[in-house]
Parts: sequence; C-alpha cells; structure tokens
Amino acid sequence: MNVSLLEKCIGKIPDYPKKGILFYDFLPLIYNSDALSLATDMFENKLNKYNFDKFAAIDARGFLFGGILCERFKKGITLIRKKGKIPGEKKIKINYELEYGTDSLEINPDLSKGKFILVDDLLATGGTASAAEKLICKAGGEVVCFISLIELCFLKGRDAISAPCESLIKYET
Amino acid sequence: MNVSLLEKCIGKIPDYPKKGILFYDFLPLIYNSDALSLATDMFENKLNKYNFDKFAAIDARGFLFGGILCERFKKGITLIRKKGKIPGEKKIKINYELEYGTDSLEINPDLSKGKFILVDDLLATGGTASAAEKLICKAGGEVVCFISLIELCFLKGRDAISAPCESLIKYET
Repeated sequence: MNVSLLEKCIGKIPDYPKKGILFYDFLPLIYNSDALSLATDMFENKLNKYNFDKFAAIDARGFLFGGILCERFKKGITLIRKKGKIPGEKKIKINYELEYGTDSLEINPDLSKGKFILVDDLLATGGTASAAEKLICKAGGEVVCFISLIELCFLKGRDAISAPCESLIKYET
Repeated sequence: MNVSLLEKCIGKIPDYPKKGILFYDFLPLIYNSDALSLATDMFENKLNKYNFDKFAAIDARGFLFGGILCERFKKGITLIRKKGKIPGEKKIKINYELEYGTDSLEINPDLSKGKFILVDDLLATGGTASAAEKLICKAGGEVVCFISLIELCFLKGRDAISAPCESLIKYET
C-alpha cells in the first residue's frame, strides 16, 4: 500500500488560514472512495497492534474518521466536544492554551471508561490532542494511541502526547 | 431488528438546552458497540433501495454518521461545513434562517457532483437539512435521500426537504 497515492489527494492551499501557512486539505481524499478505502486499510494496519475498547473522536473533523474507524473495527465511540456542546449537566471539562487565549473541551464522564484510540484528522502542535488525552484520563479512561490522517512532523506535536502516535501522511517541512 | 433496543440507548435530558425542551442524546447509543452496529444495519436496510454516488454530511454530528456510512457502503463523502470552515477561496455558500437571526453553510463546489445521501444525526424543524439540500443543488449535485438517526416527527422537518427522508428512531410528541 502506497502512501503517495493518498498524498496526491491532499489539497494544498497556500496562505490559508493566514499568509505564510500552507494548508493541507483532506476533503478531496475523502471524496474519492478508492483513496478513502486505502486510508482506512492503512489505519487498520496501524491499529491492529493495539489492545483497545473504544474510539474517542475530537470535534469536528475527527468525528468523520472516528465514524469510519468504529465501523471498520465494530467498536463504540465517545465524542470529545467543544465548549457547551455536551448536553446536560454531567460533563468534565479541560481548558487549554491556544496561540491567542484559551479554549476548552468536554466529555460525558459516563462515556469515558476503558482503553481508547484517540482520533483526529491532523496532528499539528498537539495542543488540542494533548488536552483531549488529559481529559479522557481525568474522566477515568486511558488513551492507548493517538491516530491522525496527517501529521505536520516539524511542529513536533507527538512530543505533547503521552500515548504512542500514528499517522498516515507525514509532512517533514 | 428492533428499534426499541436503539431507543433504550438514547439519553433524555429535560429542560435542555432550555426549559420545556426534552433533549434526545445519542452519545450513549454510539458508545455501545452493539447498539451502533444495529443502527448501522438499519441504516443500510433503509438506504439499499436508493441509487447514489456519495454521502454528504452536515457539520458536526453528521460527520460521525457520515463516516460510519461511507465505510459501510465503501463510498466517498463530502462535508457541508459551518461558516468559514471550508478552506481556501473556492466555496459555495447558503444563508438560512434560525429561530433568532441567520446562519450559513458552505461546500467546496469541486466536491459536490452526482447523487448524494445527505446525513445528519437528528431531524427537527428541517431548517439546516433543507439549507444543506439546497446548497448541494446550487453546487451542481442532487440529494436523493436525507437520513438521520432521530426524527422529531411533531416538528414536521421532512416537509421542508424535497428528497425522501429516512430515520431510525421517531418521536411523535
């Protein structure tokens, strides 16, 4: 299986969301059923060595890959949501730093037990992924692996995450 | 297959997001792998009679079910995103009315051709689903079916949607 076939389906958008940033867009990849099947096979290969109970997906693009993976592995999933999106009073929250200011993530503590594969579309600095991992621990669960479609290796996001990290498409610069 | 098994996994949160509203929470259902597998089998049964090319999922909870369905059917998917979330300059937008004020949805017009199954978690008044359907048409595609896990039938959302609607769990009051 050839990762360069996947890489060809990633859109490159210069100066987005701001000047000097090259944005990698996975929307063309998931639109292409062959590329998406190949990516899912590669995700499965990466995850076969882990012993886990469920998936946890990060709001919002992580939900797409979380859905794909829970169907492939026939496992349940919990959603890690942005502030104010977990319904009801029963929730656990974590605050984390952004480039400017802070943000927070929330989870339902009744839906956070056992060993999780944490899923997102992209690993950049690891700020959100690290907060999501800490949130799952705070709620009584364990993250056994973080997996993303894309990894911007030069931002060293995996250094921020305690669990082993897996990714399919790696950009070194 | 018994829809009452699914219905038991839906959380009921009174007075959320405001007094007098009973909120139906699907998070316990997707956490339970048996219930999620059953729901996916029922989705598949509902969709087998449609001839379609791809899925289109509505931001953000629709992405989870969109991911599950594109893996089950081995089809590609396009994401319909909230304002400002489609990267780059190439996008088509639709504005729609909310209870207070307006909102908008966006799609990449290069990723909107052919016959789509439109997916979301819940059908209420149909405002967002109807806007998403119109957006796909505006971008050159066609919606052959709208499908959701939950339908609040008393809000008559399916009257707002041109395509046939399917849902698994129906609340009549």
